[in-house]
Amino acid sequence: MEQALKTYQKTNERLNALGLCYFLEGWDSTFAPTASILARGKQMATISELYYEFSTSPEYESAIQTLYERRDSLDEVLRHEITEKYKSIAKLKKIPKEEYVEYQALLAQLYPLYVECKNKGDFDTFEPKFDQIFEYLRRYCKYLETDTLKGYDVLLDEFEPGMTKKQYDVFFGQIKEKLVPFIARVLKQKLSYNRAVSKRTYPVEGQKAYVAYLRKVMGFDEDRTTIGESEHPFTNSNGRNDVRITVHYYENVLSSFIFSSIHEMGHGLYEMQVSPELDDTQSGGGASCAMHESQSRFMENMIARSKAFTETHFPALKEIFSEELKDVTVDDFYAYINEAQASFIRTEADELTYPLHVLIRYEIEREIIENGLTARQARELWNQKYFDYLGVRVENDRDGILQDVHWSQGSFGYFPTYALGSAYAAQFYHAMERDIDVERAIRSGCLKEISEWNKEHIHKYGSSKYPEEILRLATGEDFNVNYYIDYLIEKFTKLYRL
Amino acid sequence: MEQALKTYQKTNERLNALGLCYFLEGWDSTFAPTASILARGKQMATISELYYEFSTSPEYESAIQTLYERRDSLDEVLRHEITEKYKSIAKLKKIPKEEYVEYQALLAQLYPLYVECKNKGDFDTFEPKFDQIFEYLRRYCKYLETDTLKGYDVLLDEFEPGMTKKQYDVFFGQIKEKLVPFIARVLKQKLSYNRAVSKRTYPVEGQKAYVAYLRKVMGFDEDRTTIGESEHPFTNSNGRNDVRITVHYYENVLSSFIFSSIHEMGHGLYEMQVSPELDDTQSGGGASCAMHESQSRFMENMIARSKAFTETHFPALKEIFSEELKDVTVDDFYAYINEAQASFIRTEADELTYPLHVLIRYEIEREIIENGLTARQARELWNQKYFDYLGVRVENDRDGILQDVHWSQGSFGYFPTYALGSAYAAQFYHAMERDIDVERAIRSGCLKEISEWNKEHIHKYGSSKYPEEILRLATGEDFNVNYYIDYLIEKFTKLYRL
Repeated sequence: MEQALKTYQKTNERLNALGLCYFLEGWDSTFAPTASILARGKQMATISELYYEFSTSPEYESAIQTLYERRDSLDEVLRHEITEKYKSIAKLKKIPKEEYVEYQALLAQLYPLYVECKNKGDFDTFEPKFDQIFEYLRRYCKYLETDTLKGYDVLLDEFEPGMTKKQYDVFFGQIKEKLVPFIARVLKQKLSYNRAVSKRTYPVEGQKAYVAYLRKVMGFDEDRTTIGESEHPFTNSNGRNDVRITVHYYENVLSSFIFSSIHEMGHGLYEMQVSPELDDTQSGGGASCAMHESQSRFMENMIARSKAFTETHFPALKEIFSEELKDVTVDDFYAYINEAQASFIRTEADELTYPLHVLIRYEIEREIIENGLTARQARELWNQKYFDYLGVRVENDRDGILQDVHWSQGSFGYFPTYALGSAYAAQFYHAMERDIDVERAIRSGCLKEISEWNKEHIHKYGSSKYPEEILRLATGEDFNVNYYIDYLIEKFTKLYRL
Repeated sequence: MEQALKTYQKTNERLNALGLCYFLEGWDSTFAPTASILARGKQMATISELYYEFSTSPEYESAIQTLYERRDSLDEVLRHEITEKYKSIAKLKKIPKEEYVEYQALLAQLYPLYVECKNKGDFDTFEPKFDQIFEYLRRYCKYLETDTLKGYDVLLDEFEPGMTKKQYDVFFGQIKEKLVPFIARVLKQKLSYNRAVSKRTYPVEGQKAYVAYLRKVMGFDEDRTTIGESEHPFTNSNGRNDVRITVHYYENVLSSFIFSSIHEMGHGLYEMQVSPELDDTQSGGGASCAMHESQSRFMENMIARSKAFTETHFPALKEIFSEELKDVTVDDFYAYINEAQASFIRTEADELTYPLHVLIRYEIEREIIENGLTARQARELWNQKYFDYLGVRVENDRDGILQDVHWSQGSFGYFPTYALGSAYAAQFYHAMERDIDVERAIRSGCLKEISEWNKEHIHKYGSSKYPEEILRLATGEDFNVNYYIDYLIEKFTKLYRL
């Protein structure tokens, strides 16, 4: 047992050290000289090979097996870790090795082709690749089915342990029943505000100055974090004392950098506020994708798109862009950042219509896995659903089925967590209001009190508990989608004066 | 044989991948959040452990052994590589393992103590550490002595293969005989020029603009290089397509950023111009410390401190600092950047007195290794020699024996390569002049022609040949110190109108 623990920790130390390499490479690649790509690509492939070798070594696996058998004698954190590791090793064993290797090799080389096809809107060329992926995933789900996980459940449970079709059906059922008709009503209205705000140019220097301001508001300490730039914003961390986010600055869009930087800082605060006690364990980081997304969307939407936040922090923005915003009022800005629109692109969707984009993907993924949908059928269904739910007609696959990278990378079951994150966030918000006066906290100018609540009720656990446990501990109840739906309906009823 | 080659290459691939981690960490540490140090320190220790494990694995060593035995059937590059690796493995075997491990452990923890003692000028506290290092090195040289390498030779040969006391004695003998009295004459003179240049403030923005200008002059392509900032300037590379240098900008010193950035770009060009054929071998990078230093000092001194370069590129500097330099002429600037001064600190020394700083270290190192000098005696000798050769009296050990980090890290035999690099550079310059009109090339505005010569005669070989071979191929003769001495005497005779 002691030997097993030693082997387990030693291997984790090595995986963790290689993790530093991934972390640094990811960050560095946002500014590395262009000609460096080829050589580092080879080196990173070797690092991945090492990572795979260590994490599947017989000694490591047998150490996990030994510890799993005596899990009752382990402390709570380690027991959770070992149970998860044991389950994922057991899972991997059910898949024929050659099939797995072949599939990984397929995925590894698809990214450049995907980007090319997306840019050209060329579905036909990518179609056979989609079909290969779909077929593999159908077999994968068959291999891993259990008494409780059937078909698509296998994938859903991977991204959000404990969430299966049964729960998601209730969740998306409510969205479909209540939000779809509500959104249809909203989209018939037109907000009246000074639209000049979206037609002006905002120099990057000023945008950066406002990010520096927001960083203080958010409590995103300079000695533990870095804010960089990249094409697509992201958050990455190497433990809780080195958390980095990136922003993309568009000169002609005012909202983009504000909400994407707050979104990423939301993710970042989660990483930063994990308990120091979990430092040398494998239980740092967030509890799940949806849980992580709940923290970014909480900050981005519930907090930063609120009336209170806008009234508190728009003046600083107006000071920076005094010329550009001279005729724009707080109310104009509030309407601008919250206006709902039927659109094609998920990542650009507003807070209200966003869940419909996810609903569409959930329904299609399920059909692909459980009803043998081909890529071509999936594309048809995609376009049909965008018309049914959002009233828009996809003209180019670049704005349709090719818009997200996920499926081309074999990520299925991931999308639903995006909507679930917002729903968790609404439930946390409700619970937080029982403890503190959230609006007053927002108006205080800094989000410390709110951030503290998140730390005490969510962040400190890292990934040492399942999302459902954290949800129960933090809110006192099981997941309940109604908070989210009520929140959206209330907010947009007011905004649109329905 | 085929199996051995495979094992050899596979292991190199892994060492090279871990090398990426060192490279990225080194770069990242120049701007990483301060709180990140502890966690990444642990991770890097694990990476080093892995590196050590791979590079001393029995399979790797036996592959090298096999390849060494059949080295006659290998191509030239691989034969050179294997011979070097074989020699270093054989060497390591001669040192009792416990002694080696104990010494490495000692060195690993000395850096913070060294910095503290240096800052306080506290010799007494560091003295016993120096003595431990000196004693180990004396034993080390005993273990590794051969028929041709005696005492200090062992260390000299490690940093510059082929250079031993015999050659260095000739080299430093000439410096002592010819330069020491010449410098004494120079130091009695005083250059007359507008000294206001060294009393003004030069905003960092302007300094950066001039570095951007110099980058074009040097041909330091943006798509393969990066210029950052750090406390101590350095060059690092991850192959020839990712070469990075750093600069430190001092607002009140005009020369520092110019010559340190050109110095580092000189190192960088070496890395960039290694033949692409050596890409996947262990023979990239420079041939030796002195050879690398020859390329940085060639650019820094022979080229950038020349009259031709000053006349060509001072106008651009004056344009940037038009206010600060309005009363400073080209001649003032040329005198300012070349003025010789007796000083305590090696790294701040001018081109002329620099070799005396190195001479002093060479003579003391030799006494330490071969005549059992203690740390206290070494310090006395240090102060005595600074007075004898440069006429200055060391008052604080911070400006004396504690000034360089090298000895505290066990680096002995390294210093001589600094002076040797300048001497190589002078010999290369002489050879280059036979092929091209160097002054005309400098005055053309860009250094392409000069850089091409360095590539064709030096850089392209990477580390696939010994320095002495490269010197012979490039200049047609063996190392000859006279080029260096003649160069210095000619340049400073003219400048000081002796």
